[in-house]
Amino acid sequence: MYPRKVCEVSEVVVLSQEEVRSCLPMSGAIKAVTEAYKAFAEGRVELPPVVHLNVEKYRGEVDIKSGFVEDFGLIGAKIASGFYDNPKLGLPSGIAVVILMDLKTSLPLAIMDGTYLTAVRTGAAGAVAASVLARKEAKRVGVIGAGTQARMQVLALKELFPLEQVKVYNIHESSKKKYASDMREQLGIEVQAVDTTKSAVSDVDIIVTATPSKKAIVMNEWIEKGMHINAIGADAPGKQELDPMIIKRAKIVVDSLKQCREIGEIQHALAQGLIKESDIHAEIGEILIDKKSGRETEEEITMFDSTGLAVQDIAAANVVYNLAKKKGIGHRVKLLDLNDK
Amino acid sequence: MYPRKVCEVSEVVVLSQEEVRSCLPMSGAIKAVTEAYKAFAEGRVELPPVVHLNVEKYRGEVDIKSGFVEDFGLIGAKIASGFYDNPKLGLPSGIAVVILMDLKTSLPLAIMDGTYLTAVRTGAAGAVAASVLARKEAKRVGVIGAGTQARMQVLALKELFPLEQVKVYNIHESSKKKYASDMREQLGIEVQAVDTTKSAVSDVDIIVTATPSKKAIVMNEWIEKGMHINAIGADAPGKQELDPMIIKRAKIVVDSLKQCREIGEIQHALAQGLIKESDIHAEIGEILIDKKSGRETEEEITMFDSTGLAVQDIAAANVVYNLAKKKGIGHRVKLLDLNDK
Repeated sequence: MYPRKVCEVSEVVVLSQEEVRSCLPMSGAIKAVTEAYKAFAEGRVELPPVVHLNVEKYRGEVDIKSGFVEDFGLIGAKIASGFYDNPKLGLPSGIAVVILMDLKTSLPLAIMDGTYLTAVRTGAAGAVAASVLARKEAKRVGVIGAGTQARMQVLALKELFPLEQVKVYNIHESSKKKYASDMREQLGIEVQAVDTTKSAVSDVDIIVTATPSKKAIVMNEWIEKGMHINAIGADAPGKQELDPMIIKRAKIVVDSLKQCREIGEIQHALAQGLIKESDIHAEIGEILIDKKSGRETEEEITMFDSTGLAVQDIAAANVVYNLAKKKGIGHRVKLLDLNDK
Repeated sequence: MYPRKVCEVSEVVVLSQEEVRSCLPMSGAIKAVTEAYKAFAEGRVELPPVVHLNVEKYRGEVDIKSGFVEDFGLIGAKIASGFYDNPKLGLPSGIAVVILMDLKTSLPLAIMDGTYLTAVRTGAAGAVAASVLARKEAKRVGVIGAGTQARMQVLALKELFPLEQVKVYNIHESSKKKYASDMREQLGIEVQAVDTTKSAVSDVDIIVTATPSKKAIVMNEWIEKGMHINAIGADAPGKQELDPMIIKRAKIVVDSLKQCREIGEIQHALAQGLIKESDIHAEIGEILIDKKSGRETEEEITMFDSTGLAVQDIAAANVVYNLAKKKGIGHRVKLLDLNDK
């Protein structure tokens, strides 16, 4: 027989997507991702290589991102997949599961749906980057793409900036219009579906690219002094949204140099020799811990290359886990038998 | 609204260690591991590199083994840890969680404790190897080590061989005696705790080494013609149980060449130049599909180097999942919200 405390630890909390949603306010995610990036920059994080599994036969892929964060006392792993025929079956194409374990003992603490969590932590990342890279009074945002991430990025920016106007462009007319009407309602500000990519990115302070594009869709000549770009879409070899000349011109900040040079927006400018690794200004965490500068002048063009780190998943899952405990929600299920030696 | 079938798939079955135990008979595991090794040999399996995470601060390590097996229609991942201070807290040092997903859609199907499962699938692997490498009428087994795996190996062998006698040696006197009395009861045959490693491995047909040793404990001069050795303990860089001269002398079979040359028993003989990779006779699956020969003479010495593959975990978890469904056991919990697009 074990003391009550030990008996309790044999239970793990399982949280559905709906429950995760109710425990992950954007403001909490922004705070958590900030802490996570700082811990990463200060070496209190271990992130082994991402596992990639191709299931060609069913047009699917699975990524496993894992690691630990001392600040949160957690080990975490996220199994995230993209199965592109799923919508034909009425299923989402992206599915993710996150597991959290105690850093001191490796006891499983929580298992939760990771789909909404991924969307929120990626949105939060963009806002955290913009907080040190965009102009302080940024009010106008131009968005390319009208999917979940195009929404999350703007919802996150709204937490930190006095947004007044959003312009959106997407190749599908209907989704662009739906974005505009949905977001107008959610944000309570002007959200306008525009006719071209160029018009979406003109006369704005912050540009968000959140598409699955594999070629440059935002051109260098459209970019004005002082703009900040959150390059969100590119997170795999071959993916691209920006004219590489923009990257040559901008102050480049990445989430992880190791990851971005392989799968981020900067892969193309590096491959073409337009920039060298030494031209990359900083990893975002280095700016947050004041080791490197953020925006230094009103005129400079800045860009953030986001590929997504396990440390963000663990940070967001930690917010969910703590709030779920506090609210007493989720299914508690037993995994281990502690009487079984 | 979705048809009933789609609503059901949003649920995942969570199975505790106790429930896994009740759904994983050794005979089923042996059959499943055989199929898994065959599928691996025939290329219907994808196994990405194992992720290894060191948590030095708390004397812990985490491995993530993952992959998919077409034969079972499953993707699987196992997060398995060893935290060596856990026993001081009344917790097991080894903890594992397995998640199974549908290969066609990546929908999560089951989440289960992986501790007992790992023990059984590893035991099953030894028996599967012995079935093609040991002499058909093998009756006597010599075991070094008295832990869980020393037990599982013999329980698995008992399924396939007419065992009459087991000898066990372990450095701890008390655990050796407990092994003998427990196993005598379980197997219903003679199980004897002996005084030396040498006496445990003398006059036997099959030798099992299942210790955490980092140096050779079984010497070449003790090994007689016709013996088969299941080298189970070595599964990490630096681990070793056999005199490398045994490996030079034996017909060498591995679970995975890629894995064994790095972390298996053969790492030492390879590093010392006693054998070359071309001296390795086969991966076990190649024998099971009749691409390579198993034992060919009564005299040859054979050895199986087991490091453990994700394909075994997926195979064992598949047995558990199917039997749990049939018996209707486990907690069904919702992860995905299929109405949330």
